[in-house]
Amino acid sequence: MVGHGFMGAAHSQGWRVAPRFFDFPRPIDMAVLVGRHDPDSSARRWGWGEAATDWRDVVARDDIDIIDIVTPGDTHAEIAVAALAAGKHVLCEKPLANTVAEAEEMAAAAERAASVGVRAMVGFTYRRVPAATFARDLVAAGRIGDIRQVRAEYLQDWLTDAEAPLTWRLKKDLAGSGALGDIGAHAVDLTEYITGQRVQTVSGILETLVAERPLLAEGVGLSGTAAGERGAVTVDDVALFTGRLSSGALASFEATRFRTGRKNALRIEISGSLGAIAFDLERLNELEFYDGTLPGTEQGFRRILVTEPQHPYAGAWWPTGHALGYEHGFSHQAYDFVTAIATGTPPRPSFADGLHVQRVLDAVERSSEASSAWTAVEN
Amino acid sequence: MVGHGFMGAAHSQGWRVAPRFFDFPRPIDMAVLVGRHDPDSSARRWGWGEAATDWRDVVARDDIDIIDIVTPGDTHAEIAVAALAAGKHVLCEKPLANTVAEAEEMAAAAERAASVGVRAMVGFTYRRVPAATFARDLVAAGRIGDIRQVRAEYLQDWLTDAEAPLTWRLKKDLAGSGALGDIGAHAVDLTEYITGQRVQTVSGILETLVAERPLLAEGVGLSGTAAGERGAVTVDDVALFTGRLSSGALASFEATRFRTGRKNALRIEISGSLGAIAFDLERLNELEFYDGTLPGTEQGFRRILVTEPQHPYAGAWWPTGHALGYEHGFSHQAYDFVTAIATGTPPRPSFADGLHVQRVLDAVERSSEASSAWTAVEN
Amino acid sequence: MVGHGFMGAAHSQGWRVAPRFFDFPRPIDMAVLVGRHDPDSSARRWGWGEAATDWRDVVARDDIDIIDIVTPGDTHAEIAVAALAAGKHVLCEKPLANTVAEAEEMAAAAERAASVGVRAMVGFTYRRVPAATFARDLVAAGRIGDIRQVRAEYLQDWLTDAEAPLTWRLKKDLAGSGALGDIGAHAVDLTEYITGQRVQTVSGILETLVAERPLLAEGVGLSGTAAGERGAVTVDDVALFTGRLSSGALASFEATRFRTGRKNALRIEISGSLGAIAFDLERLNELEFYDGTLPGTEQGFRRILVTEPQHPYAGAWWPTGHALGYEHGFSHQAYDFVTAIATGTPPRPSFADGLHVQRVLDAVERSSEASSAWTAVEN
Amino acid sequence: MVGHGFMGAAHSQGWRVAPRFFDFPRPIDMAVLVGRHDPDSSARRWGWGEAATDWRDVVARDDIDIIDIVTPGDTHAEIAVAALAAGKHVLCEKPLANTVAEAEEMAAAAERAASVGVRAMVGFTYRRVPAATFARDLVAAGRIGDIRQVRAEYLQDWLTDAEAPLTWRLKKDLAGSGALGDIGAHAVDLTEYITGQRVQTVSGILETLVAERPLLAEGVGLSGTAAGERGAVTVDDVALFTGRLSSGALASFEATRFRTGRKNALRIEISGSLGAIAFDLERLNELEFYDGTLPGTEQGFRRILVTEPQHPYAGAWWPTGHALGYEHGFSHQAYDFVTAIATGTPPRPSFADGLHVQRVLDAVERSSEASSAWTAVEN
Repeated sequence: MVGHGFMGAAHSQGWRVAPRFFDFPRPIDMAVLVGRHDPDSSARRWGWGEAATDWRDVVARDDIDIIDIVTPGDTHAEIAVAALAAGKHVLCEKPLANTVAEAEEMAAAAERAASVGVRAMVGFTYRRVPAATFARDLVAAGRIGDIRQVRAEYLQDWLTDAEAPLTWRLKKDLAGSGALGDIGAHAVDLTEYITGQRVQTVSGILETLVAERPLLAEGVGLSGTAAGERGAVTVDDVALFTGRLSSGALASFEATRFRTGRKNALRIEISGSLGAIAFDLERLNELEFYDGTLPGTEQGFRRILVTEPQHPYAGAWWPTGHALGYEHGFSHQAYDFVTAIATGTPPRPSFADGLHVQRVLDAVERSSEASSAWTAVEN
Repeated sequence: MVGHGFMGAAHSQGWRVAPRFFDFPRPIDMAVLVGRHDPDSSARRWGWGEAATDWRDVVARDDIDIIDIVTPGDTHAEIAVAALAAGKHVLCEKPLANTVAEAEEMAAAAERAASVGVRAMVGFTYRRVPAATFARDLVAAGRIGDIRQVRAEYLQDWLTDAEAPLTWRLKKDLAGSGALGDIGAHAVDLTEYITGQRVQTVSGILETLVAERPLLAEGVGLSGTAAGERGAVTVDDVALFTGRLSSGALASFEATRFRTGRKNALRIEISGSLGAIAFDLERLNELEFYDGTLPGTEQGFRRILVTEPQHPYAGAWWPTGHALGYEHGFSHQAYDFVTAIATGTPPRPSFADGLHVQRVLDAVERSSEASSAWTAVEN
Repeated sequence: MVGHGFMGAAHSQGWRVAPRFFDFPRPIDMAVLVGRHDPDSSARRWGWGEAATDWRDVVARDDIDIIDIVTPGDTHAEIAVAALAAGKHVLCEKPLANTVAEAEEMAAAAERAASVGVRAMVGFTYRRVPAATFARDLVAAGRIGDIRQVRAEYLQDWLTDAEAPLTWRLKKDLAGSGALGDIGAHAVDLTEYITGQRVQTVSGILETLVAERPLLAEGVGLSGTAAGERGAVTVDDVALFTGRLSSGALASFEATRFRTGRKNALRIEISGSLGAIAFDLERLNELEFYDGTLPGTEQGFRRILVTEPQHPYAGAWWPTGHALGYEHGFSHQAYDFVTAIATGTPPRPSFADGLHVQRVLDAVERSSEASSAWTAVEN
Repeated sequence: MVGHGFMGAAHSQGWRVAPRFFDFPRPIDMAVLVGRHDPDSSARRWGWGEAATDWRDVVARDDIDIIDIVTPGDTHAEIAVAALAAGKHVLCEKPLANTVAEAEEMAAAAERAASVGVRAMVGFTYRRVPAATFARDLVAAGRIGDIRQVRAEYLQDWLTDAEAPLTWRLKKDLAGSGALGDIGAHAVDLTEYITGQRVQTVSGILETLVAERPLLAEGVGLSGTAAGERGAVTVDDVALFTGRLSSGALASFEATRFRTGRKNALRIEISGSLGAIAFDLERLNELEFYDGTLPGTEQGFRRILVTEPQHPYAGAWWPTGHALGYEHGFSHQAYDFVTAIATGTPPRPSFADGLHVQRVLDAVERSSEASSAWTAVEN
């Protein structure tokens, strides 16, 4: 695994725990953790066999089968392309890359690799929250009919405080974009996953609400100590956009770090001719389902606890009604990826899926610069 | 109408509004308001044709068809019995009476009156909240199967403040009982109404949490200005009891004025072999319904907005999704009562129903005095 | 009162009930109901003294002080301008008019009338739901700090069925616009009311999801029997738009009749630097308030039951915890309007406010025709 | 660790994961899994170093420091007493034992062991859900004032189906009791933990709703295949009881496996003179808090997402808003237990705490047999 921030902890937990609950086709050995700055303590803490500082060395090793990339987005392309070229299966955290050009390069590399059985997958883990997977199943089974409208939003509030420091996630050169790429990407992917459609044109606006923030004195991750000086926020705080899906239906999106009181609210509501589904990541064990084919007096949004043995993934864990948490999606991802490798199945979301999401985000940026004019997503 | 407290306002609103939305078989004339202390201003305010101070005079009048009794419970029996004897149809606010003996007398009078086509009904209006009526319909149609358990509670918090004054509702001689009779009665009636069963034996405890309160200097109703002296609270603040229904199922009850933060939470949840229903008066336009016959992965409590034209009473009011309020039940009650009179149908809840509720409350009091031993409800 | 559709019933209920609960400075006499087709039965049902077929006759009468207009939007301007010219106070249901030009004419007439003490008000009653008024009070008191973002949506689903008939609300010549003007107008007004700001530029899209529907054989109002032939839907089913407020904050809007399972969900969430408020008309007795100045571990959205005596309007009705319904706003409106007339205070929302909303809607239409380009709202 | 059912998986997950997120004072080695029937596969699956079939052998080993007991309740006493006598620290899953006598023996053994620094703890892990711990903190800090009432319930529905098989949990000789001991014990412990008080007298009833069930053909755990024959259910399906706490306040309890649609709803609401708290295990990342000291118009139940770094345990895991699941409590338990051992602090809940809960359950059984008469809990 390359990288050791917050995502490193989450992926490590996935690799460590998944084999205890799912029947893996091959044993998992958490071999090497790669980090530029003192990876040893992280390796020990998270249970990796050894630590290294240069990912190139690890990619070159014969005893490594899978490279899991959890570094910031600006380094994804170089590592992934090299790893795939070296015949390693690659799991790459989202966003696939910071630019469309890099993402295209990666998708091309993944396609080449696939021809020799080497697999690549991008880490939109929220697809693997059981309620989200079950939502996809209901939609795919026609339970809500033709899709009429989608509302997808990812609401956070950690920038509400105008004195919150300028972390790497607020700098365009490192993060690529702000709320749009960090969390808006999830909203787009989840929409495309559950609907089975693609966003084809967009109209939107990006906005930076607090233009300058205190420089970060020290610390990493989502927070850190504020220093005296200030620097410019070079990414968006809020992204509001509308997209037209393959079927012609409109989907309305919002990604923001300024919705006070909303901590991690990735929500999606899909309205169809026969019903609707609604999901909120802040209550990730629940799915709301409205069945419009029931008698008129009995229709209503139904709160389904997605913890039954027959629900996706849920049977491997605890009895009915016992909640799963944020990190379980990483176990599901690890299991699905290894299973896909073993069975020779192309895993999803593919790098092509990830590239498409990047292109949607890119089209939003271009629309925002063009007075929100409708802008085609590249193919 | 006899009486002019808070209930007088609610009943007046019912009589005034109902004929605008429901097709009454006979025209309604709000003739006389009776009150001991200056009924004129109330009569003007609420739209009664005239005011009087002695109910006996009104009961004796030929031009009066219906007597609506909204006085405190200690006067119900005398007025109702006299009115029925005079051939007036009687709508009597709950509780039917402050003692079982009085209630028995009233029920006997109602039975005699019925033989000559004179009708009597007791005012448990919460039966007539559309969601509650619809819950009864679902249960009666077998949609939740055999009833396994009932939880019914009526939670308020207006006595949480130990310095709240000693109103008439806290004195046994006027109010009969405290939380038990005032709000517990609703929980019992709603349980019996929706299940179609009767509570037959009970075990319970009554408790007064704050034994002394400031005397009320002036003011009436639910609140009032506190004076310097203190007096004893002679009714219960909390009633906790369990009852066994006709079918053998257990129902657990709570009536309290000390559940901090709960303002008017009359809630009932009925669990059956095929499903469940849940209702909360604080969200009175909603009914939750769990259908256990759906596929296992799709079961969940469904929030039904009970505002469809096909729902009970709802079609007479506003379009789908437009909320009704507390007072609409009084219109439904007025309409149902007059319709029953016109069609010669015995209206429900009858005085016999009201007597039965009194007997349940009485059995709870006796159980409480007997170390909560199981105590039969009289027949 | 001129007009006798669903809004006629609601306004009649307001005029009838309000004086029973609020102290009106002048007595209210529900004198004449005007309707083109058989107004007599409506007049009787709703309690108007007499009926008439030509509003011009009524406007000319000396014994009429107030004209309440509840006809479809295409007739508002003519009636209102004539009534104001005749010295009648005018309450006009929203939308103020079907075109900006008409609305401008009305606002000008209202301004002229105001100079001689004749008052005009537009009927955005949702401002007068206690929870909405209280939200405005909290925002005005600075409890959520500087406004950072607004999300306002009005979600219905009564057109989800593609076979629902072509009522007058789906025809541009009668209704002016579709979801945009009918319900989007409420979302705009509520946003401007609570924030105290105005929408200044917009970017948006209007969409008709079902282009043809069965002609309406008979019946009026929101539903009706479907005939064999089909006609074109000439208004929008869905309106998605973003607006920039006076302070620069972005507000995102959605008005739709295709959000399956949402019956009457006028929702607004306002995020500020110190807190947030959230409201949903489907639970109109509740307001959610997030206070970001509390200790970090104790912050959360707080469900306030807006039924306390100290809450706006609530004290005039029932005790704490007793729900109000949809129609109570019409009583509040009647009371506020008459009070404004009596005290010589300009009532709000004024015709100028209503005109501004029309201009916002107009800008949305123009933006939609210009590939969603940002478009200034006229001044 | 001794035992390898569902609880074995949960405890293993706790031991495995906790050291990755918490700083343990001593390294953890998951040495031996003991099981009577083929423990090898469980040991491999859950990551134990080796497997054994006789716990006596393991208790005798010098290289073992901690014995974690997750067997059915009838074996707890023998194992725990022997382990403590051998100087092993003991973590014992709840209920402490199936009889009060056994629990007394265990508590005595724990007291003896404590005098030589050997520690014993009982596994009421729900105390260690961050929201529950935080609830305790709020109550201890006086934020809800004097406790006035408690409602604690643990609702499940897995026996609603009358054809569900007769598992060991339905046999008195193995399980000790039914809903009362299995889940009612959690409701009692959580009440005592959060309030800091003890249940001193009780009145209650135990009820078996389905008296006979199909014998279990094969399978273990919560479900299993049904065979043709039937056997008697010898434990309670439902337990309803009221307890009086040390302060005199009443607490009302319900434990049931027949509340249709409720999957794992351990709920507690504590009402105090200054506020209230409410918790539901089905939404375990949330705590509702009502602060009665706020201005009257602003009071309401506040949904706190208990995922802030300053909340108990939460800071060790993921960023704000990222949900924890059922199993995280087992990590917290492992960490707290090892920390208590290392620092020489008596861990809680102690065996004495567990014994007290058993005595409460025993008093409920005796009350049930005595017509629900109030019955003192032994000391």
